[in-house]
Amino acid sequence: MMLIKIGGGEEIDLEAVITDLAAQEQPFLLVHGANVLRDRLAERLGMEKTVLTSLSGYSSVFSDEDAIDVIMMSYAGLRNKRIVELCQRQGINAVGLTGLDGRLVQGERNKGIRVRENGKTLIKRDLSGKPRAVNTALLSLLLEQGYCPVLTIPIADERGFAINSENDDIVAQIASQLPLETVLQLIEAPGFLDDPEDETSLVANMSLAELQQREARVEGRIKRKLLALTRLCQGGKTRVIIADGRVDKPITGALAGAGTHIA
Amino acid sequence: MMLIKIGGGEEIDLEAVITDLAAQEQPFLLVHGANVLRDRLAERLGMEKTVLTSLSGYSSVFSDEDAIDVIMMSYAGLRNKRIVELCQRQGINAVGLTGLDGRLVQGERNKGIRVRENGKTLIKRDLSGKPRAVNTALLSLLLEQGYCPVLTIPIADERGFAINSENDDIVAQIASQLPLETVLQLIEAPGFLDDPEDETSLVANMSLAELQQREARVEGRIKRKLLALTRLCQGGKTRVIIADGRVDKPITGALAGAGTHIA
Repeated sequence: MMLIKIGGGEEIDLEAVITDLAAQEQPFLLVHGANVLRDRLAERLGMEKTVLTSLSGYSSVFSDEDAIDVIMMSYAGLRNKRIVELCQRQGINAVGLTGLDGRLVQGERNKGIRVRENGKTLIKRDLSGKPRAVNTALLSLLLEQGYCPVLTIPIADERGFAINSENDDIVAQIASQLPLETVLQLIEAPGFLDDPEDETSLVANMSLAELQQREARVEGRIKRKLLALTRLCQGGKTRVIIADGRVDKPITGALAGAGTHIA
Repeated sequence: MMLIKIGGGEEIDLEAVITDLAAQEQPFLLVHGANVLRDRLAERLGMEKTVLTSLSGYSSVFSDEDAIDVIMMSYAGLRNKRIVELCQRQGINAVGLTGLDGRLVQGERNKGIRVRENGKTLIKRDLSGKPRAVNTALLSLLLEQGYCPVLTIPIADERGFAINSENDDIVAQIASQLPLETVLQLIEAPGFLDDPEDETSLVANMSLAELQQREARVEGRIKRKLLALTRLCQGGKTRVIIADGRVDKPITGALAGAGTHIA
């Protein structure tokens, strides 16, 4: 089984991705983002995101009720259903779902961010959290009947409330509970770049050891991404490919060797 | 089995509806609207609806790509996922789906509206249509496993494209293909009113014959609504209740006799 994670950038060629997907052998499932769409919608609605800086100097988006509304409209609504539509047009019997639906992805709400405001230390708790369990029974039921699950945020917290979560963590959680041979991540770059500014610096193959060495050397958002990749590989049980989602036949190309292959 | 149709008005008390639903015996499925939310979102985004008047004098909303985007954001996104969230909070294992997902509701695209523009007769074809088939296998699969399907638009056309459709027609199509004992419609009125302007003019009981007589006497949108109700009753096989969605315990109340009972 293959899981394909489609990035939320605007340069991803969704039509090319889904057309190519229709030529692959089943079963597969999709997880997708929609961050550019979300930011643009939030701006048009005047509901721009709040970024908090914690006492430890870490910045993060504060997910309030408005932010969840915008996630529901952009991720669960527009992006999810347009992907499902593209699938249906190509003969893939897609079913779009969020982590809320059938408690497909059950999370644990974050405890809060410690911030300093007007000389006081406050704990601000938002609607975000980490995925802790996947309803594999529902996913398997759909896959066995020939459906292609198309997953996105929000996920459910312990009490069933909608919360925001990181797609990387959701993919890692699914990979730990379903027998995935391959996880293919389609992004807006040719793959993992040695120099993020230089598209010709593609790292074509990376061993798990090299991935761990790189993770130890970097800081910030990229460190989190590399850590998620390490977890995803599960000590080599799952092949991970990072490839370009902006090209023609992106899946066929990646399976034939394009992009970065980690194993 | 019971189908509950939740109107898309803003006075419907969703929290009261779902809390009461959690006290009912399974299985049930929901179909919901979101017209007020849709109109408000479209206005905020400057994507207001286009209304065309046909040669025969009939007005209808023209569903273009923008209109489908707004339906995906409001019906399939915000409203559907907030209802699923309310269900999950109350212990109902809801799964939100549009007609696109698993081709749950397959429609036939409308042929177009004949309009007069600049002295010429044109046929304008939009993204709307009539539901013709329901994926009862998927609905039954979910219901048998204890899930509560929560359905909304868009639906799929013959080629898998997303199209707009009338909820009344979707409910009638589902009723014709699943063994529904009861269809409960929750609206922003005490039930069917003899005089639409007078909330005290509730018609508590209506026979199928009376429904048909009323349908023959009226014109416009209400005629279409009554015709849909006639089809829904299926000659008495399905009990139809129209009740107030703005009150506490709206479902328990309706099943105990409140609203308009048609049989």
